[in-house]
Amino acid sequence: MSSADEIKIRLAQHQDVPAIIGLLADDALGQEREQIANPLPPSYLQAFDVIARDERHMVMVAEGDGGDILGCLHITFIPGLSYRGAARALIEDVRVDGRHRGLGIGHQLLNRAIAEARHRGCRLAELFVHQTRTDARRFYTDLGFQESHVGMRMALP
Amino acid sequence: MSSADEIKIRLAQHQDVPAIIGLLADDALGQEREQIANPLPPSYLQAFDVIARDERHMVMVAEGDGGDILGCLHITFIPGLSYRGAARALIEDVRVDGRHRGLGIGHQLLNRAIAEARHRGCRLAELFVHQTRTDARRFYTDLGFQESHVGMRMALP
Repeated sequence: MSSADEIKIRLAQHQDVPAIIGLLADDALGQEREQIANPLPPSYLQAFDVIARDERHMVMVAEGDGGDILGCLHITFIPGLSYRGAARALIEDVRVDGRHRGLGIGHQLLNRAIAEARHRGCRLAELFVHQTRTDARRFYTDLGFQESHVGMRMALP
Repeated sequence: MSSADEIKIRLAQHQDVPAIIGLLADDALGQEREQIANPLPPSYLQAFDVIARDERHMVMVAEGDGGDILGCLHITFIPGLSYRGAARALIEDVRVDGRHRGLGIGHQLLNRAIAEARHRGCRLAELFVHQTRTDARRFYTDLGFQESHVGMRMALP
């Protein structure tokens, strides 16, 4: 068990992908979406390599002092026309290992993401949360996010 | 007044930016956010040029047969790790000229955006709608979008 001040927030590397996918799969919604296998389905590694090559994306991980990956998120920096041509930061795939919750790991990840967004000149941070994730909604509200919008999705089969 | 079958959906060009910003500003929420002036504040044109140079973005406009810009939207193609490494399409800044509503212009724009998303291999289309835009929410629901998520935002002053 790590306390929050032993956590290092850093950019994800290729070798972190299995741990990240493990985090994404480790909840009720994620279990249906993800496919954990050894070796991991190549679509995950291919997607990571596309993301890692693109300067408009950052995948961050929270690493415990034993080297374990305890949390992750993905930021996309999006230039936009509205709000007088303001860039925005879309934050997705936020997860914290269920065995290490309540230690501030999520706060450290989000604070780092928001700092990166400011550093890039973003005027807005935005994210989608499934309506059923009540704990996550409270977490983001406490950080200063407002539930101003509806997040609408359509699968493209 | 144009009927929908006289509308051309095409990529936006630099010279369309004033008309696009006019559309973005032409509603209750947009009036507060945007700044219409002649010449247009350079932040808009700078943002457009960044977007136009990046292959992960498309700004589309609906052009009437007289050459007027009657609608717009902005698509961002986002590689992602979740959903087995699926790419997604974020659709933003959707507007139709208030004098030309009900002619199917919005449907043509969205159908084109969804076709582009499929063409790029996206498995999801997603968008934020302000909770107060009840007409827009119905429009997207009719198109097949689901109000599955909360869209949370934080201004970064």
